[in-house]
Amino acid sequence: MSDFEKREGEIALPKDPAEFADDANVVFIGKIRTDWKSRSDCPKNLVQARERGKGARIEIESLWRQGLIGLEKASHIIVLYWMHEARRDLIVQTPRHKNQPTGTFALRSPVRPNPIALAIVKVLAVDQQTGIIEIDAIDCLDGTPLVDIKPWIASIDAVSE
Amino acid sequence: MSDFEKREGEIALPKDPAEFADDANVVFIGKIRTDWKSRSDCPKNLVQARERGKGARIEIESLWRQGLIGLEKASHIIVLYWMHEARRDLIVQTPRHKNQPTGTFALRSPVRPNPIALAIVKVLAVDQQTGIIEIDAIDCLDGTPLVDIKPWIASIDAVSE
Repeated sequence: MSDFEKREGEIALPKDPAEFADDANVVFIGKIRTDWKSRSDCPKNLVQARERGKGARIEIESLWRQGLIGLEKASHIIVLYWMHEARRDLIVQTPRHKNQPTGTFALRSPVRPNPIALAIVKVLAVDQQTGIIEIDAIDCLDGTPLVDIKPWIASIDAVSE
Repeated sequence: MSDFEKREGEIALPKDPAEFADDANVVFIGKIRTDWKSRSDCPKNLVQARERGKGARIEIESLWRQGLIGLEKASHIIVLYWMHEARRDLIVQTPRHKNQPTGTFALRSPVRPNPIALAIVKVLAVDQQTGIIEIDAIDCLDGTPLVDIKPWIASIDAVSE
């Protein structure tokens, strides 16, 4: 990436992780279907996605659908998805909502060494036969590849503030 | 994997994802240091890990340490780690704590198509120079490869039950 694609204070790594990452291999298990067809239209986070009130759908490929057995008992799921349009080489970023350069691991930006995003969403319906999970909202482009789904479990995942 | 390594009701995929996964590549950005040196000694989840009261440490490799700038403001982080000793081919599992076969995506088992585990943990200290993050507890083997760290943000990640 050339320097003029960076904002003030941003730092790129000397090499792009997209070019040298080879420690482990991910298989995409499905896709996320949303109303957001372009990056300019896509909500920036889950709060914005919920405000738009559109809902969303996860489609699991047939090979993996038995993995949904029992998921209908979960009130919420943790969704991991691959931000396939995000660059991976910025280690310090200056997002528009921050007034100073901030480390990538202190941000929820899709731009990160491993562009895996995470959302904790409400489950509305699970159809194991068709592989479709209806959820309340999510903040990614239509067609975003799915990496994993896990049940949200209060005793493990709730944070007492 | 041969059938006798499966418990009753478990279903393995026709092919092992470890052999055909090639949709995306992950780079390990560091390691997790815990007191658990063997799988038999390792806590099965974060609740058990906290009960043992041992604490844990995340070590970020030098290349990525600028990514920690600003992370000291986070009270909790979401840690993604690669369960490098887990098989990937079971799509229905019968864990000891469940009385019936359950889909992999309805479980938090490390055994899954993409063996990425997730823990939401308390941050005790961040040292950007050494790349060390002290956390309250985590449920993985010493030396487990680190995939990502994200700040936990109440407005996005808290679940109202």
